[in-house]
Amino acid sequence: MRGLMQDWPLLVHKIIDHAALYHGDREVVTRSIEGPIVRTTYRQIAARARRLAGALDARGFALGDRIATLAWNSWRHLECWYGIAGIGAIYHTLNPRLHPEQIAWIAGHAQDRALFFDISFTSLVEKIAPSLPHVELFVALTDRAHLPAANIPNLVAYEDLLAEGDGTFAWKQFDENTACGLCYTSGTTGNPKGGLDTHRSNMLRAMMIAQVDAMNISCRDSILAVVPMFHANSWALGFAAPMIGAKLVMPGAKLDGASICELIESEKTTISAGVPTVWFGMLQHLVESGKQVRHMKRIVIGGAAAPRSMIQKIETELGIEVAHSWGMTEMSPVGTIGTLTAKLTELPYPEQLDYKAKQGRALFGVEMKVTDDQNRELPRDGITFGRLKVRGPAIASSYFRDEGLASFDDDGWFDTGDVATLDAEGYMSIVDRSKDVIKSGGEWISSVQIENLAVGHPSVAEAAVIGIAHPKWNERPLLVVALKPGHDCCAEDMLGFLSGKIAKWWMPDAVAFVDEIPHTATGKIQKTELRARFADFRLPN
Amino acid sequence: MRGLMQDWPLLVHKIIDHAALYHGDREVVTRSIEGPIVRTTYRQIAARARRLAGALDARGFALGDRIATLAWNSWRHLECWYGIAGIGAIYHTLNPRLHPEQIAWIAGHAQDRALFFDISFTSLVEKIAPSLPHVELFVALTDRAHLPAANIPNLVAYEDLLAEGDGTFAWKQFDENTACGLCYTSGTTGNPKGGLDTHRSNMLRAMMIAQVDAMNISCRDSILAVVPMFHANSWALGFAAPMIGAKLVMPGAKLDGASICELIESEKTTISAGVPTVWFGMLQHLVESGKQVRHMKRIVIGGAAAPRSMIQKIETELGIEVAHSWGMTEMSPVGTIGTLTAKLTELPYPEQLDYKAKQGRALFGVEMKVTDDQNRELPRDGITFGRLKVRGPAIASSYFRDEGLASFDDDGWFDTGDVATLDAEGYMSIVDRSKDVIKSGGEWISSVQIENLAVGHPSVAEAAVIGIAHPKWNERPLLVVALKPGHDCCAEDMLGFLSGKIAKWWMPDAVAFVDEIPHTATGKIQKTELRARFADFRLPN
Repeated sequence: MRGLMQDWPLLVHKIIDHAALYHGDREVVTRSIEGPIVRTTYRQIAARARRLAGALDARGFALGDRIATLAWNSWRHLECWYGIAGIGAIYHTLNPRLHPEQIAWIAGHAQDRALFFDISFTSLVEKIAPSLPHVELFVALTDRAHLPAANIPNLVAYEDLLAEGDGTFAWKQFDENTACGLCYTSGTTGNPKGGLDTHRSNMLRAMMIAQVDAMNISCRDSILAVVPMFHANSWALGFAAPMIGAKLVMPGAKLDGASICELIESEKTTISAGVPTVWFGMLQHLVESGKQVRHMKRIVIGGAAAPRSMIQKIETELGIEVAHSWGMTEMSPVGTIGTLTAKLTELPYPEQLDYKAKQGRALFGVEMKVTDDQNRELPRDGITFGRLKVRGPAIASSYFRDEGLASFDDDGWFDTGDVATLDAEGYMSIVDRSKDVIKSGGEWISSVQIENLAVGHPSVAEAAVIGIAHPKWNERPLLVVALKPGHDCCAEDMLGFLSGKIAKWWMPDAVAFVDEIPHTATGKIQKTELRARFADFRLPN
Repeated sequence: MRGLMQDWPLLVHKIIDHAALYHGDREVVTRSIEGPIVRTTYRQIAARARRLAGALDARGFALGDRIATLAWNSWRHLECWYGIAGIGAIYHTLNPRLHPEQIAWIAGHAQDRALFFDISFTSLVEKIAPSLPHVELFVALTDRAHLPAANIPNLVAYEDLLAEGDGTFAWKQFDENTACGLCYTSGTTGNPKGGLDTHRSNMLRAMMIAQVDAMNISCRDSILAVVPMFHANSWALGFAAPMIGAKLVMPGAKLDGASICELIESEKTTISAGVPTVWFGMLQHLVESGKQVRHMKRIVIGGAAAPRSMIQKIETELGIEVAHSWGMTEMSPVGTIGTLTAKLTELPYPEQLDYKAKQGRALFGVEMKVTDDQNRELPRDGITFGRLKVRGPAIASSYFRDEGLASFDDDGWFDTGDVATLDAEGYMSIVDRSKDVIKSGGEWISSVQIENLAVGHPSVAEAAVIGIAHPKWNERPLLVVALKPGHDCCAEDMLGFLSGKIAKWWMPDAVAFVDEIPHTATGKIQKTELRARFADFRLPN
């Protein structure tokens, strides 16, 4: 029997409408690309998003069209999200940190019909424009005065485009499962794959991350959105902040420690979220400048593992609570967060830190399990590790244009590609990537855990562990080491350093010294490159 | 274009599964009907709910069946909700405070196939059982040892029924718009009307009320659920507490000040929600006993208007934050909550109280407007009042068996039957019920506001204002007064008391003195009865 509740589809434009009505004067503050700090409000953003929607509609853009953005966090970028989604089109966030050829490939795969870009990316757009015949409209996110003189066809200034629209434009209506945003995973192997989220998934994820035990967002908070809108959907902050009515502070292109600290102080921000690199920068700046941050209550760290020492430093020296988080583009994107349960708050602080250093607990609406290669569920004992699989209403069911279907199980679970443990308290801990884990005699060895230990050696600058084919054990670990300049070390010394710290059968069979460890565009160790380089490497008997 | 997110229907059994897995040891504590305090956990509740689902399934209950409960808040009642909903049947909460005939009428209208009841209601059930031929199974919420010897057919003890089921029963799968719970409004006029909520609406409302600016629920909280599960769905706490993993404390049948305060202290509760009567009782008990409540952080008051003096007393004398809330059975049921915005926290406390005394601000997902009789939207100025209309995913679209369709506008808004103002800060304030407002010369006069003033007169025990037909003005107000024993007062004195406190055209045309003001079963003034009694009353010229 069907219940008798109203049909009120979860469409994201309802978020900005709610913000305009109930938090209309709440500020959105941006360090603009043009230079000055720009202050606007949710009321203005809602009206301007409607203008944009009207202008796009009038120019023939419609339901299902992909419209790309290549931009830092700004009020205009936020308007683009709501304006584009408000006609049922799809905002497609491009990552400016990728190689130009890769950006062009992604835009081509998506068949974007328009491209909105920050003027700091003008030369990049100029370069790739000729290979984007499907892009009918280029929009520089600025006003006419700042419009760059560039060799880009059909170029218009954003403010001029807005002037074509009307602030009373009526949002289009459609099903809540309509595609809303498109974002490609950078991917260390193969072509990038597009995650296509929906209005429903974005709204549900925003409701989840705002909860007390997630990001703990109140309308009295001021949020510094360091995590980029172009990558992993700004961890849903672009939806959660206006939904709750929190002030939103956008750092634009400047993510260095000094710039971040300046915004934290001037805008009295209380919550922030970003990758470890940003917080390293903040900590270093505070030490060097002797300055303080006074209003900050909570920092959410994700995108990469936050070192235990960083968590401790921020909590004990700055008095700011840290919550470790984990997610993926395919998960809209937040999956876990490390807020302590009642039971764990009673532990001594060092033991609390053991939990805080893990990747956190699943949000409600994110089901998680670890399985072996035969998809048998493994125990939640904090020790046994296996493939981490997830299920939920804001998790991908497939990729755009059916790329990479292997990630999706027949029973509806998404294989994250991570290898992890789950413990009795619900905490998940990433052990490795499944393609990097070393399969030795049917058992798995974590490359990451050996690497983390190896970099503790005083002479080691960076370390990587890869699997080398082995006739008996299938694979055995090779430790690849780049030494610090002026340091010296031999294989015996390295292995002696590891000895006793890991199980005997985890000990690398050999150590190779290299000048430099190769990296991807986003700074991850490029293990594919290492595997190619050591393809012919022969392990000692 | 359809997005590529997983199909993960919002079904309430996922809430108790999440609680069992991530908050399995978290306690649910009940003052049981049998007497002792009973402690259980979410893990046990989830397993027992599955047992119940299995037992019901085996006995042939299925999707769409209505299964009634007549029970106080308890762990068993909570198990019933999840067990019944878990097979796609509908839990139908009956209000034991209604007259037996009315309860039987409602059960008949719903055609309940089973009835679960607390043993304290045995004689009531014995009385109505003969008029419930559609009820095939009566279940006493107790074990065999406490099973009452009663003349009730097909009677089984709850614990025996559970023993028929299996803790590993697999929940049934169905669409999220499937009916989940049924609850009839008591209604001061006409027959009771059934609100039929869905799995989707319950889950969305739970996600909304748990937010920081709503009930602010963390897994570290201990919630005293005073608000009954049989009335207005326990304000969604039965879903929100396990979703978040908060400890849940159920007061059973004892809602007096002493019993409530004892639970608050012994279970270290931090959040509670209930009607003003309960908090009057708590305040009185604390004054008389000299006791304190030490862990409580926040009380949500709704169901009826909380007097400003009560809000002030709880906040300043007990140091507990009060949030005023408003909702309806038809709204699943919370619509507004009075948490302060950043701007309002900067006001002096007396001005904050002005806002706290209003009914609060709309939750995200509750659209509100006030309109005139022609459905034209009125300004949000805090002064102009009109019909309060609401829209959202957890708001009724019609009533069970199409009763009372007049409440639903063609454009999808539900007319709450309340008359209210909305102010620039988003606060709603109830002025009257639309059937009680006096329509004088095309303008509206609030009966409630005159009543509130009249009871301020030292001789007045209770006051009611009703409209009397008038040839020129359509209606004019008659003030009906019951005096305190031993007091005396005349019409001139009463009107003199009101004079200057309200607009001249609001002044009652006459005053009638009565021995007693009639009330409904739930304690509201029965204005229909008063209107009938004064049907032939002639106003002076």
